[in-house]
Amino acid sequence: MVVCKKWVLCTAFIGPPEASNFKLETEELPDQLKSGEVLCEAVYLSVDPYMRLFSVPVGSVLMGEQVARVTKSENPDYPVGTFVQIMVGWRTHTILSDPSKLQKVVGTGDLPTSLALGVLGMPGMTAYFGFLEACRPKSGEIVYVNGAAGAVGSAVGQIAKIKGCTVIGSAGSDEKCKWLKDELKFDAVFNYKNASLEDALKEHAPKGIDCFFDNVGGEDTTVVLKHMNKCGRAAICGGISQYNKDKKDKGELPYSAILINLLHVEGIQGWHHVTRWPEGKADMLQWIQEGKMKYKESVTEGFENTVPAFIGLFKGHNVGKAIVKI
Amino acid sequence: MVVCKKWVLCTAFIGPPEASNFKLETEELPDQLKSGEVLCEAVYLSVDPYMRLFSVPVGSVLMGEQVARVTKSENPDYPVGTFVQIMVGWRTHTILSDPSKLQKVVGTGDLPTSLALGVLGMPGMTAYFGFLEACRPKSGEIVYVNGAAGAVGSAVGQIAKIKGCTVIGSAGSDEKCKWLKDELKFDAVFNYKNASLEDALKEHAPKGIDCFFDNVGGEDTTVVLKHMNKCGRAAICGGISQYNKDKKDKGELPYSAILINLLHVEGIQGWHHVTRWPEGKADMLQWIQEGKMKYKESVTEGFENTVPAFIGLFKGHNVGKAIVKI
Repeated sequence: MVVCKKWVLCTAFIGPPEASNFKLETEELPDQLKSGEVLCEAVYLSVDPYMRLFSVPVGSVLMGEQVARVTKSENPDYPVGTFVQIMVGWRTHTILSDPSKLQKVVGTGDLPTSLALGVLGMPGMTAYFGFLEACRPKSGEIVYVNGAAGAVGSAVGQIAKIKGCTVIGSAGSDEKCKWLKDELKFDAVFNYKNASLEDALKEHAPKGIDCFFDNVGGEDTTVVLKHMNKCGRAAICGGISQYNKDKKDKGELPYSAILINLLHVEGIQGWHHVTRWPEGKADMLQWIQEGKMKYKESVTEGFENTVPAFIGLFKGHNVGKAIVKI
Repeated sequence: MVVCKKWVLCTAFIGPPEASNFKLETEELPDQLKSGEVLCEAVYLSVDPYMRLFSVPVGSVLMGEQVARVTKSENPDYPVGTFVQIMVGWRTHTILSDPSKLQKVVGTGDLPTSLALGVLGMPGMTAYFGFLEACRPKSGEIVYVNGAAGAVGSAVGQIAKIKGCTVIGSAGSDEKCKWLKDELKFDAVFNYKNASLEDALKEHAPKGIDCFFDNVGGEDTTVVLKHMNKCGRAAICGGISQYNKDKKDKGELPYSAILINLLHVEGIQGWHHVTRWPEGKADMLQWIQEGKMKYKESVTEGFENTVPAFIGLFKGHNVGKAIVKI
C-alpha cells in the first residue's frame, strides 16, 4: 500500500493565507497498478501566488504543478525513472494514466528538473508570451516591471534586455534590487518600500514608459499607466497587492490615461499560450545556455513545509522561483 | 476686406462648459489672396465632446473641423465652389494654401457634404477603425455600446450588426432608445437613466459581453469590464461622464477583471488611423448606399449658436451627429 500525503484547504482564505487554512491528510493508493497506469512520486512542488487568486473549494487538495518521478509503471511510454510535470496539486503520490496529463520533463542537460516549474515552466512561459505578445517590445524602448525579483518578473526583465530595451525594475528589498542590478543587469532598480512610485518613475523613466509588465496591481498600476508614453502596452499579469484583500482597492480609474495615450492594456496568463510553450522553452533554454538568462530558486525543504513556503510568497520571502523540495 | 467671426476660449473650463467660457471675436482677412491661397467659407461646423477633453489654451480659437466652400481662389487645384474639410476651429473664414490642410470633400452623390463631419468623417472613422481594430468582432459575438445614440455609438452598433453580432446599446432617453431599436435594428436597448447598469447587463447580455465600445467612462466602465467574457475586447473611445469633472471618478479598479478574463482594453482615437480613412470611408459610403448604415444629424442653425450646440452635447441634446449650419 502506498500512502500519499496531501495538503487540503480546510477553511476559505480570508485575508493573507494562514497555517490554519491548511490541513495535512493522507490517502491510501492501491499497490497494484492497472495497465497504462504509472505511480508518480513528487520531487519538487511549485508554490505560486495564483493559488490564492484562483482558490480551490474548501475540502479540496491545493492546486499546483509538480515535477515527479515515475516509481512504478504499467505504461511502456513512461518507464520507471521518467521525470514528468503534472498538475495534480499539493500531494506526494499520484497514479495517472492519461498521457495528456503526463508531460515529460524535456531534457535540459545538466540543468535541474525543477526548472520545469520555473524559468522553463509556467512562470517562464508567462514571462515569455505575456511580455512578447502583450507588450510587443521594440529595441530601444523603456520597460518597467514590478515584482521584478519574482519568478516571472526576473525573466521579463532579462527578456527585455535581450530584446534591446532599457529595463527599470522594482522590488521589495535592497538585496533583491542588488541582484537585479548586479547579476541580471537591469538598467535601473528601486526598492518600492523606500520610494514614492510616482517620484521613482520620474527619476528612473524621465522619458516615460513604453512597456509595462504588472505583477502588483492596485492603485500603483494606475500610477504607472499615467506615466506611459503614447501607444504604450501594459501586460496585466498579476495583482499580488490585491489577492489577500477581500475588498479590492478603490482608486483613480485609468480610463482617461488609456484613452488619451492610446494605451493597450491586456490581461495575460501563461497557460493561455500552452500550445506554443515548446517554442518559448526552446528560446529560454538557449538563452540560459548562452548565459543571457539567469534564474534563482528559493528552495524550501520538505513536504511538511509547503504551507510556510506558500505563505512566504506574500511576505516577499522568495527571490526568483519558490519551490518545495520533497 | 473679409471679416471672419470666431469663437475664442476666454476662460478655462471648470466643470461643464458654460456660455461665459466663450467670446465671439472678429478678425480681418486681406482681400487679396497670394498665389496658391484660397479663401474658405464655413458651411458646417462640427461640435464634439473631445473639444472639452483636449481643451485649447485660453485665448485661442476653439478647435474643430468644418466643411467649407472655396469662395475665392488663387490655386487652380481648388477652384471656387470646391468643398473642403479643414481643421481650423470655430471660425467663419479662413485663408489656406497648404494642400495637406485642404482636404477635398469626396464626392458622395446626393448625400449632404455635412457627412464629412459625421458618418463619413472623424466620428464615422472613429467607429470604424476603433471598433474593428480594437474590438475585432466576430460573427455571433455579443457587443455592448454605450452613448449608442451619439455620432460614434450609432455607427458602431450598425457596423456590429453588419458584422453579424448581437448588439446591445444604451442611451439617455426613451426617444433615443426607440430610434436605436426601431430604425437601427439594435437587438436590445436600455435607457441608462432608468436602470442599474449591472441589472441591465444581466438582463440584456445574460451570456456576457465579448466586445465593449465605451463612450462614457467612469465607474460604469468597470461594471461593464466585470461583465465581459474570457478574451473580451474593450475599446475605450470616450469618457463623456468624466470630461466635465475636475476631479475624476474614483472607483473599483478593473485590473482583477482584466487579468482573470484575459481582457484587451485599448484606447482608441479616429485620427490615429487617418492614413487609412479612405478605406473606411469607402466601406461606410457603400453601407449607406445599401441602406445598412443610417445616420442622424442634430443641426443647429447659425454660427452664433455654436456655443449652445456644444454645451448641449453634455446634456444629451443631440441624437446622432451634432453640427452647426452657418
